[in-house]
Amino acid sequence: MNRYTIANIPGDGTGREVLPAGVQVLSAVAQRCGFALEFRDFDWSCETYLATGKMMPDDGLTRLADHDAIFLDAVGYPGVPDHVSLWGLLLPIRREFDQYVNLRPVRLLPGIRSPLREKSTGDIDFWVVRENSEGEYSQIGGRTGTGEDEIVIQQAVFTRRGTDRILRYAFDFARKLGRPHVTSATKSNGLYHSMPFWDERFAAIGAEYPGIATDQYHIDILAARFVMSPERFDVVVGSNLFGDILSDLGPGVTGTIAVAPSANLNPSRRYPSMFEPVHGSAPDIAGQGIANPIGQIWSGAMMLDHLGEAEAAAMVLAAIEAVLRDPQAVLTPDLGGNGSTAVLTRQILEKLQGR
Amino acid sequence: MNRYTIANIPGDGTGREVLPAGVQVLSAVAQRCGFALEFRDFDWSCETYLATGKMMPDDGLTRLADHDAIFLDAVGYPGVPDHVSLWGLLLPIRREFDQYVNLRPVRLLPGIRSPLREKSTGDIDFWVVRENSEGEYSQIGGRTGTGEDEIVIQQAVFTRRGTDRILRYAFDFARKLGRPHVTSATKSNGLYHSMPFWDERFAAIGAEYPGIATDQYHIDILAARFVMSPERFDVVVGSNLFGDILSDLGPGVTGTIAVAPSANLNPSRRYPSMFEPVHGSAPDIAGQGIANPIGQIWSGAMMLDHLGEAEAAAMVLAAIEAVLRDPQAVLTPDLGGNGSTAVLTRQILEKLQGR
Ligand SMILES: CC(C)[C@H](C(=O)O)[C@@H](O)C(=O)O
Ligand SMILES: CC(C)[C@H](C(=O)O)[C@@H](O)C(=O)O
Repeated sequence: MNRYTIANIPGDGTGREVLPAGVQVLSAVAQRCGFALEFRDFDWSCETYLATGKMMPDDGLTRLADHDAIFLDAVGYPGVPDHVSLWGLLLPIRREFDQYVNLRPVRLLPGIRSPLREKSTGDIDFWVVRENSEGEYSQIGGRTGTGEDEIVIQQAVFTRRGTDRILRYAFDFARKLGRPHVTSATKSNGLYHSMPFWDERFAAIGAEYPGIATDQYHIDILAARFVMSPERFDVVVGSNLFGDILSDLGPGVTGTIAVAPSANLNPSRRYPSMFEPVHGSAPDIAGQGIANPIGQIWSGAMMLDHLGEAEAAAMVLAAIEAVLRDPQAVLTPDLGGNGSTAVLTRQILEKLQGR
Repeated sequence: MNRYTIANIPGDGTGREVLPAGVQVLSAVAQRCGFALEFRDFDWSCETYLATGKMMPDDGLTRLADHDAIFLDAVGYPGVPDHVSLWGLLLPIRREFDQYVNLRPVRLLPGIRSPLREKSTGDIDFWVVRENSEGEYSQIGGRTGTGEDEIVIQQAVFTRRGTDRILRYAFDFARKLGRPHVTSATKSNGLYHSMPFWDERFAAIGAEYPGIATDQYHIDILAARFVMSPERFDVVVGSNLFGDILSDLGPGVTGTIAVAPSANLNPSRRYPSMFEPVHGSAPDIAGQGIANPIGQIWSGAMMLDHLGEAEAAAMVLAAIEAVLRDPQAVLTPDLGGNGSTAVLTRQILEKLQGR
């Protein structure tokens, strides 16, 4: 029997409510499909920071390293500056474990209303492949000068290795999906050094995949096209920042911010990959038991897929879709219902059991 | 009689078709309102570049300097890399003339269908105030290493002076509009140096305007909110890159990319300001006489407003809206009609004359 150890990091806010829902659903599907999941809890969060001055212990990364995957909810809490909490936990995990791919589906699900006119289930269905380890997200830079004369430098670093591997991932992924079309997000008209380089590498790597069509748009007009013609995309690849923007905008366009999942992948499998919903820690509704667990559960499905349990992954996604398609379903308030996290989770478990 | 000299730069592609339409309408309104506009043409473009290796002559900026305003269409043509054409003309003009504000309305116009459900004229109506002179758009950086080991550095520079003045502009503008609410675009959770600084200055300048409400969102979720709840915004202020993205996304959400205007302002009036449509040079439809002139004409209205001819500016905008509201109007193909640039311009002229 295959056995996987998973490091759970519920993080802050609603994370403590939806992560257990994910664990419940994954455990159920593991039992049905005949593999074992062993979850270990890591209570690292902004609370940890307020108590200890650190988001995680000094040997935190080492302690995570011998897991097969990391299952995270969200980090962030009022009172702890975001750049402290993120650069103290999420971003070091992405970097240390070389999770250089951030993969997010943009999919209009059954039962969910897109804010766009005349779009229905199936009309919008593509993937954003985001560079997740370098680029604009950087701690290089700083401040100089004082008062009125202060200036701040923020440096982005693009390596050829880092750029090529994310572009190759996007092309390979498009091929695997059977949707041979990759769109690149650029801004080579404004960002003088980084983006012309990105375009050059996109052209070079694209040439290695003659069967795959390519196009590219500047990020400003690309964002507009996500709204005007989202049905045109198959796989969209972008830098760390552009991918970040597009992979929130996409779920915005499909009405699914609260349910969208994401995978931070180390495709070599040398280090654990990490799975987390797109939404944040939602401090405004924390503690009420009404947070939508679907983003967490769907992220769990992506985790199973990555671990090689594709069938189980598909079953979880099918169960989510079956609930959303069911007119009798009791959904959470963000989807217009009056159900709790527990009630929505129970319905997903029931669909999983074929009830 | 007030007299203004305007430097026309039609640029590339459809620019040569829509800029004259703008001149026609502005001349007509000037005559009606009793002021004079003297237009001088500067034929600087990618063609210039291909012939001379320069987008404009060495004394180009000096030649523009003694005009009251610059009326530009769009620069960019296949065969000339974007970063060459833009850094050879548009961006130096913005910087030399210290046009540190890029101002763009996001407005759902009559007769134009938003891609969003259930939104109609008036529901979406806000402004994006973009920093236009520094930040992420920078030529500082470069490449080092060769082959597989190449790395590329792209540096963003935020000055306190530059940041404070754009934030103050946004607050003053919100006050002038009578809509006391400013939203800041940030990404202080990922961009370690620049955006925490931006947030700090936003808080500091905001404190100078106690009557104005503030909020801030990370750019990823803010982009999603442009789609999910665009009616919530009044004035949105962002850095050069974030403002760029938001001010294309906004017109995307209101279905008006082809008609949206923009102003590059030097509020001190020490140097000429520049007015240009949001859309590009549209090489795919150039030469057919079917480009939509509204973005250019509306940009002209913003120019008149800046020159102090507020009444004339309002008349031009009213004429545009009257045509769009008229069910008999013959529009250009981008708006679903079969009219030409000339035909649409003529109708605007007629509305201006009260016919
Ligand atoms: C053409 C390009 C450099 C420019 C910009 O990004 O500033 C354009 O997109 C704009 O918004 O005016
Ligand atoms: C929290 C933040 C640093 C993070 C990011 O920008 O990467 C988040 O927005 C995401 O997309 O996972």
